[in-house]
Amino acid sequence: MIQKHPKARFPKGFKCFATNCGMKTDGGKDLSIFVSERTAAAAAVFTRNLFPGAPVVLGREIIKNGRLRVIVANSKVSNVGTGRAGLENARKTAAAAAAEFGVPVEEVIMSSTGVIAKPLPVALIQAGIKGASNKLVDDPLFGAEGIMTTDTRPKAVSTSVGDATVCLVAKGSGMIEPNMATMLVYIFTDADFEPETLDRLLRKAVDKSFNMLSIDSDTSTSDTCVIMANGLAGGVDQNAFLKALTEICVEMTKILAIDGEGATKLLIGEVAGARSKADAVTIAKSLVNSPLIKTMAYGADPNIGRVLMAVGKCVDCLVVPEKIQVAINDVVVFKEMERRNFDEDQIRRLLGGREVRVSVDLGVGDDVATAFGCDLTEGYIKENAAYYSS
Amino acid sequence: MIQKHPKARFPKGFKCFATNCGMKTDGGKDLSIFVSERTAAAAAVFTRNLFPGAPVVLGREIIKNGRLRVIVANSKVSNVGTGRAGLENARKTAAAAAAEFGVPVEEVIMSSTGVIAKPLPVALIQAGIKGASNKLVDDPLFGAEGIMTTDTRPKAVSTSVGDATVCLVAKGSGMIEPNMATMLVYIFTDADFEPETLDRLLRKAVDKSFNMLSIDSDTSTSDTCVIMANGLAGGVDQNAFLKALTEICVEMTKILAIDGEGATKLLIGEVAGARSKADAVTIAKSLVNSPLIKTMAYGADPNIGRVLMAVGKCVDCLVVPEKIQVAINDVVVFKEMERRNFDEDQIRRLLGGREVRVSVDLGVGDDVATAFGCDLTEGYIKENAAYYSS
Repeated sequence: MIQKHPKARFPKGFKCFATNCGMKTDGGKDLSIFVSERTAAAAAVFTRNLFPGAPVVLGREIIKNGRLRVIVANSKVSNVGTGRAGLENARKTAAAAAAEFGVPVEEVIMSSTGVIAKPLPVALIQAGIKGASNKLVDDPLFGAEGIMTTDTRPKAVSTSVGDATVCLVAKGSGMIEPNMATMLVYIFTDADFEPETLDRLLRKAVDKSFNMLSIDSDTSTSDTCVIMANGLAGGVDQNAFLKALTEICVEMTKILAIDGEGATKLLIGEVAGARSKADAVTIAKSLVNSPLIKTMAYGADPNIGRVLMAVGKCVDCLVVPEKIQVAINDVVVFKEMERRNFDEDQIRRLLGGREVRVSVDLGVGDDVATAFGCDLTEGYIKENAAYYSS
Repeated sequence: MIQKHPKARFPKGFKCFATNCGMKTDGGKDLSIFVSERTAAAAAVFTRNLFPGAPVVLGREIIKNGRLRVIVANSKVSNVGTGRAGLENARKTAAAAAAEFGVPVEEVIMSSTGVIAKPLPVALIQAGIKGASNKLVDDPLFGAEGIMTTDTRPKAVSTSVGDATVCLVAKGSGMIEPNMATMLVYIFTDADFEPETLDRLLRKAVDKSFNMLSIDSDTSTSDTCVIMANGLAGGVDQNAFLKALTEICVEMTKILAIDGEGATKLLIGEVAGARSKADAVTIAKSLVNSPLIKTMAYGADPNIGRVLMAVGKCVDCLVVPEKIQVAINDVVVFKEMERRNFDEDQIRRLLGGREVRVSVDLGVGDDVATAFGCDLTEGYIKENAAYYSS
């Protein structure tokens, strides 16, 4: 387990700013900026959606340099499906931040999250950026506020590794204002790494954490995860850093999952004994994506046969029914083609907590995977049936 | 359009029986039998779920003969995840029906739909079958009652083709008693075809209809579609028959979709201009499976950017954002990277009807596909959060 800090704190040399620049009409913060006092090595991963937002299109180019000073992000409008004008507006956002902080424009990356196919009100953002360099604060949670959409709380966590600190700021899969589950994650560290190393470590950590998260199986057009390493704490052992990075990313993944729209529970799908890593990942995701398992968790209904269905529907995986064992929060409920543990009240209790862990041992190999999700409730329907209009 | 009959009727030589054999405690019918007066050519397709029910395991063997006289089906318990005892119980069911109707046991096929991983009460079924041969009726809707689960109404449709009749009896994707979306479809015709031809025609028709249906993306362990052709109406032109069969199967697919759990609307995803058939199918299914499009339809919320997301998340397809055109019920809402038709009240009205058709032209090829689904409502959550327990 990681020794995460009771209250999230920035690594050396990082600060942030957040404000309402006039996009959210209720006065909530809608613009955030994160700055390193010196140029940081940087890496990023973006959504695989084939209809990416303008900030993602530009971000892929910007991150090729492997260097960043500033991240500027807005909520409320995602700048997706906005054509050439959208790209221009994203560039203007970066230019305004570069001017304000006196840094090269190629060291500024931008994100937007919110409704698709609406123009970005870039004049509001430009005005909001003005003067930000004199108002920087030391609290990552403050910076997390400007990127919130349907999130019920701002999200930041940090941990120590050697002399260095790793801090994550994120927004989750809410949709009250944007119209899709958009995930933004910013990772800050004062450890010293080259961009290539950082990129490799980031991808490894993301594969076990954010890439295993699913709130509702819909892939955002804006998902972005950026890491900045400014080196102020010097070198850190790579393996120790990767371990800490992965653990803090998994921690944030759980925070995002349980704050999914309408969610009341964290749903974890664990697969062991798979023929291959790909099989393990496919089945773990099938467990947390199945509407029938999600509603079973919500209602604490001991309908465990649904787990067999969700395994069997992965038709391209190696599944041998006779070898499958299923457990709920470590209590075996199906084994050797028979239901075990018919004490349904016990199973109701297991399903009744804030965390439901469905574990499947396929018994045909050694590969494992863990996926993270949440239950499916009336709250999800309510938020999304009138999202745009509200 | 097909000339379907105002009230469904059987082809020559088919009759049915339905009763309560004691499994449904509210007295609802839970056992149905369909009989041809002479041996019919037969073909079938089954679920691809890797954890199939005992009736599916046996059904795959039985249908290899290409001949059937009797279909016996029960609701309430699915006989899935029941091991060797489950196979025995399915065989006993077939044996009881064979004895009652004086036919070879290899001409009897069975289905079960209901809760997974519970023993089949085969004694009740055996008793229920006794005397059925003296109580056959001529109304397919009557036979449809015994296979209902969360279906809100029994389902049968028929049509004429030449001198022959094609009749479909089905149950849809309800889950009040069973614990997953189980689809059973039985097709009866008095047209004369060899089993091999019937099999080929069935697969073609199913690919455009039932295989394009998704209520909630969870694949049942019991899905079964059987066709019986007893030849009493003589030969029929193959192309005309395939056309009629496909159209009546699409008709039933729509009936099943709109009776999906909690559904208030039929949701149709149409894709044109795809690079390949596989791309068209993948994206059409993505449209009707997206929780965000389903809730948009439910709430009549003009949040059409979600359509772009659902297209773009099909990461293995050829998607060129600049070429995409999107229409809702034939009104273009996105084209050339810009939102069109900002009369949101009009879009609200389009989304407000009983049928919402989302059409995407990818503009990169000639392939097309149409998928069928329904909206996602609080009703789905309610039915499935307490399904087992209620």
